[in-house]
Amino acid sequence: MNQHRPDTSLADAMPQRLGDQGFHRVGILHHPKKPESIQLGQQIAAFLRAHGLEEIWFESAWESEAVLEHLPNVDLLITLGGDGTLLRAARLGARHNVPMLGVKMGRLGFLAEIFPDDWQAPLTRMLQGSYWVEQRLMVRVRLERSPAEGAPRASLCEYDALNDVVLSRGGLARVVRISVQLDGGYLTTYTCDGLIVSTATGSTGYALAVGGPILPPELRNILVIPIAPHLSMDRAVVLSEGTEIRMRAYSDHEAMLTVDGQFVVEVREGDEIMVTGSPHLARFIRMRDRSYFYRTLMNKLRGPSTQEGE
Amino acid sequence: MNQHRPDTSLADAMPQRLGDQGFHRVGILHHPKKPESIQLGQQIAAFLRAHGLEEIWFESAWESEAVLEHLPNVDLLITLGGDGTLLRAARLGARHNVPMLGVKMGRLGFLAEIFPDDWQAPLTRMLQGSYWVEQRLMVRVRLERSPAEGAPRASLCEYDALNDVVLSRGGLARVVRISVQLDGGYLTTYTCDGLIVSTATGSTGYALAVGGPILPPELRNILVIPIAPHLSMDRAVVLSEGTEIRMRAYSDHEAMLTVDGQFVVEVREGDEIMVTGSPHLARFIRMRDRSYFYRTLMNKLRGPSTQEGE
Amino acid sequence: MNQHRPDTSLADAMPQRLGDQGFHRVGILHHPKKPESIQLGQQIAAFLRAHGLEEIWFESAWESEAVLEHLPNVDLLITLGGDGTLLRAARLGARHNVPMLGVKMGRLGFLAEIFPDDWQAPLTRMLQGSYWVEQRLMVRVRLERSPAEGAPRASLCEYDALNDVVLSRGGLARVVRISVQLDGGYLTTYTCDGLIVSTATGSTGYALAVGGPILPPELRNILVIPIAPHLSMDRAVVLSEGTEIRMRAYSDHEAMLTVDGQFVVEVREGDEIMVTGSPHLARFIRMRDRSYFYRTLMNKLRGPSTQEGE
Amino acid sequence: MNQHRPDTSLADAMPQRLGDQGFHRVGILHHPKKPESIQLGQQIAAFLRAHGLEEIWFESAWESEAVLEHLPNVDLLITLGGDGTLLRAARLGARHNVPMLGVKMGRLGFLAEIFPDDWQAPLTRMLQGSYWVEQRLMVRVRLERSPAEGAPRASLCEYDALNDVVLSRGGLARVVRISVQLDGGYLTTYTCDGLIVSTATGSTGYALAVGGPILPPELRNILVIPIAPHLSMDRAVVLSEGTEIRMRAYSDHEAMLTVDGQFVVEVREGDEIMVTGSPHLARFIRMRDRSYFYRTLMNKLRGPSTQEGE
Repeated sequence: MNQHRPDTSLADAMPQRLGDQGFHRVGILHHPKKPESIQLGQQIAAFLRAHGLEEIWFESAWESEAVLEHLPNVDLLITLGGDGTLLRAARLGARHNVPMLGVKMGRLGFLAEIFPDDWQAPLTRMLQGSYWVEQRLMVRVRLERSPAEGAPRASLCEYDALNDVVLSRGGLARVVRISVQLDGGYLTTYTCDGLIVSTATGSTGYALAVGGPILPPELRNILVIPIAPHLSMDRAVVLSEGTEIRMRAYSDHEAMLTVDGQFVVEVREGDEIMVTGSPHLARFIRMRDRSYFYRTLMNKLRGPSTQEGE
Repeated sequence: MNQHRPDTSLADAMPQRLGDQGFHRVGILHHPKKPESIQLGQQIAAFLRAHGLEEIWFESAWESEAVLEHLPNVDLLITLGGDGTLLRAARLGARHNVPMLGVKMGRLGFLAEIFPDDWQAPLTRMLQGSYWVEQRLMVRVRLERSPAEGAPRASLCEYDALNDVVLSRGGLARVVRISVQLDGGYLTTYTCDGLIVSTATGSTGYALAVGGPILPPELRNILVIPIAPHLSMDRAVVLSEGTEIRMRAYSDHEAMLTVDGQFVVEVREGDEIMVTGSPHLARFIRMRDRSYFYRTLMNKLRGPSTQEGE
Repeated sequence: MNQHRPDTSLADAMPQRLGDQGFHRVGILHHPKKPESIQLGQQIAAFLRAHGLEEIWFESAWESEAVLEHLPNVDLLITLGGDGTLLRAARLGARHNVPMLGVKMGRLGFLAEIFPDDWQAPLTRMLQGSYWVEQRLMVRVRLERSPAEGAPRASLCEYDALNDVVLSRGGLARVVRISVQLDGGYLTTYTCDGLIVSTATGSTGYALAVGGPILPPELRNILVIPIAPHLSMDRAVVLSEGTEIRMRAYSDHEAMLTVDGQFVVEVREGDEIMVTGSPHLARFIRMRDRSYFYRTLMNKLRGPSTQEGE
Repeated sequence: MNQHRPDTSLADAMPQRLGDQGFHRVGILHHPKKPESIQLGQQIAAFLRAHGLEEIWFESAWESEAVLEHLPNVDLLITLGGDGTLLRAARLGARHNVPMLGVKMGRLGFLAEIFPDDWQAPLTRMLQGSYWVEQRLMVRVRLERSPAEGAPRASLCEYDALNDVVLSRGGLARVVRISVQLDGGYLTTYTCDGLIVSTATGSTGYALAVGGPILPPELRNILVIPIAPHLSMDRAVVLSEGTEIRMRAYSDHEAMLTVDGQFVVEVREGDEIMVTGSPHLARFIRMRDRSYFYRTLMNKLRGPSTQEGE
């Protein structure tokens, strides 16, 4: 386990201090399609070794099983890639409480902390203990299916997601009807392209694109918002992390469940999808002050041509 | 050709009169999956014969080729089904200027004029000449593809659509980038789930579900509106019918083009999609007064189920 | 103080039990412009007396001072009127923790529990202890002004609001610029008609009308959302109850601060408005089950008049 | 009257040629609160005189009566100020068909054609005949009032507006109910802060701030869109220029009618407001190519911090 002691240099944060015991074992995840991420990973490893850290391993972020083997014995996970790489790392690392540090190597990037052209100064601050840990809610989704007609449903699979879980139509059919229950009480039935169940982290992703509100990262709320609702409920609903959201899809064709925009599970007729707050939190190492989020947000909202002042 | 003389009974409309020459030859299209539509079609045919119309034929709305053979020699097309059936009929019948009369047999229905439980009175009014013809703009879409790398693009296929044309991501990849030119001038590049190019008729369909404005049926404008735009242009743009809209899709995966929500064409890298107003208009027989549209609209907006359970 | 013991009849609620000590002293607030509210108040008083409650007083909901005198010694406040009457009662009663029970006598009504044509049954259930207490976050707003140029700002006035606090342009000038800081960090500057800072309760009020998300009543979040933002940040932001929101208005003309839509304070150049969660909660007596909120919501969203005229 | 002959240098425009007869008499309107606008006006006048134009007069854009006296005998109106100055000029000059040329001296500016730091080159092009005339629809609003209870309504005042006409609540009361008829058919009753009736020109102004679609300048449509609609119709409606829009306001307090955001008329109970396309068009001199509008639009949408590349 990591140990964190107070850092007196960041007055407005809940700071954490790197002691002798912290960050001994570091994993570095590169993006398999970005050679520059391997190169940068090696530079960072050399830098860390020069500062006395010895146990450093490398892995492709896509090699889930290899990464999972390492995770029980790691104090810090450095990811080199876009937000997608951090989403992967979060799903893998959450149950081990591993803090993550993202180096942004893609176009988007609400989650990364460090930029490829300026990584030594922030890493040095981190090693000196000038950092804080941002904890973000994840959602847990469970797909329940009946083994046979009339038999009770059983859990078919279960995942944690840092951004969102989307229940949507499959390829062709445009419309799916999705009924929703909140803590056992009926909410409504949406006629739509799909329904997004998002965390605060996901509120700047797909949910934002369909008109959702912004939730700052530390907020432990769950957001439910439809994609292209047709003559049905069109507002986002903000819920507490403990709410149990239960969905069923009705469609002429198949429906599908997408987790963090990264993988898809087919949903059959009669299946139920249950989402609620995950017991695991994603943990991010931050050296910037706490208002970094709104600065990044306002820069992104200004559109692609605006340069990122971060 | 149909001949229409003024009808003095509907002061606020531009009415059309059925003379001796009108509506001799009637086609009745049923919905192949709704047996009740066959039954009702036969009742309507008997009713029309009793009123002296002799040339009546039946066909499934899905049998495009059989319908197309009839179309050059038909004065009126009666469709029994939902809006989907009328959309099919419009695409088939537009180039022959055939007036259509929709009998609503589905849940939705912005286009139908007659309801199954009250069809004799309006049909009688129509036969007496108390009707008007509503003409609606269609859009024409053309997919252009290069036969080989570097070769000029050629038209691959071309369709008329009464509702909308949608260029969107395929199954898995969430985001597609779509660049748009209007009359040769660059507009913007959307990062989105897809882009809808819609007629006034389509403005109460998919475009409505993504936040678009309402255009009454007689408006000859084209609406361009993105689905789930991510940190890019998120407003609808209303254009004149003569505007040439040219789109290109950029995606890691395939993109697809959907016409009236009814069929799909695969779009490859490098393809261009061109949309503009069609030279053909869809023509609908109306017996209700001209404000029927807003009444129907306001009823739909109030939602599908309406009793107050409080 | 009221004492509440568990109620075993409502399994899904956190029920409260009326013991011998509860609800002895009841205040009834009528609406001064609705004579029928006085009449119904007397009927309810007679009913309560018949059930052994002796200390009952009447007052107009608009007589703040008279009501305030009573409040330290009251166990239940029954209001007869619309949501406006309950908003008043909440502001007055919050600091005394007085539970409120609303009888709906207006068109709108998200807050009321009882309806004029069916009040005896629910009141009986309440007296039998079959009720629960819904606690709702209020926001506290403080207007700070400098006594003189360059002097430090001092608190000019302070209010609690159950719905919302709105900083907006005055009568004529259309646009005001409002800069916002969250916990001391700069968020953005809105160019807009005004800015709404709303509770969950207010999320179904003015905030809903400008596109805000729905927050169920028990959520202790604060919502910030602009009215008619012009080429500036147009999304709602959801915050935790402890966030300190600091606003300044820049306008050629005056700006104004509206509290719960009920009264207005003029805002001068240089003033700062600070909003955060109030230490007081509004407390509502409920006999309906906890999913009442979503049922009411979905009914409201369907619109005021609902018959299909088609 | 101005005479315009074809210009062969701008192939994609409907160009106009300055002959010997064109642009003899030029009015220059400055902004009374911007001294730099007087200075620039004098420089432009000297420039024009050097090119042989003799009849040049100056006036403050706010001196309506003085301007109106000049207007029957003017070939070109140059305005120095923001969009507000051009809106004024358009209202005054429309009935005389005077072409306008805007020099942008304010922060905003969708209408201006020339920028203070680069005016000689475009003015030279104009004098050489390389320009086109953009014609924009205006709306005409008429307020009708009964002289006495029960007496028929009479026209109280009538204005042309280039941007929009807004019927809204007065200062305090938050909500006004506004019923709307289109060509005599009932549309709906809005519960809202106000209702905007906008031209294409106004679609990038107030209407944009409440979620409206973009209409390019040449579109002769009218846009109806509510401000903060509460549980009532919340979509924009796009209409043809000939539609007669008739509104009535119902409120506990007064309502008001704002024309182009520039002046206000008090609306009493029982008044009716009628809006339709004006017979006059606003005419703007353009030297930039026709896609200038979308370039300006996309720059504005990117937010205030993005520099204007125009």
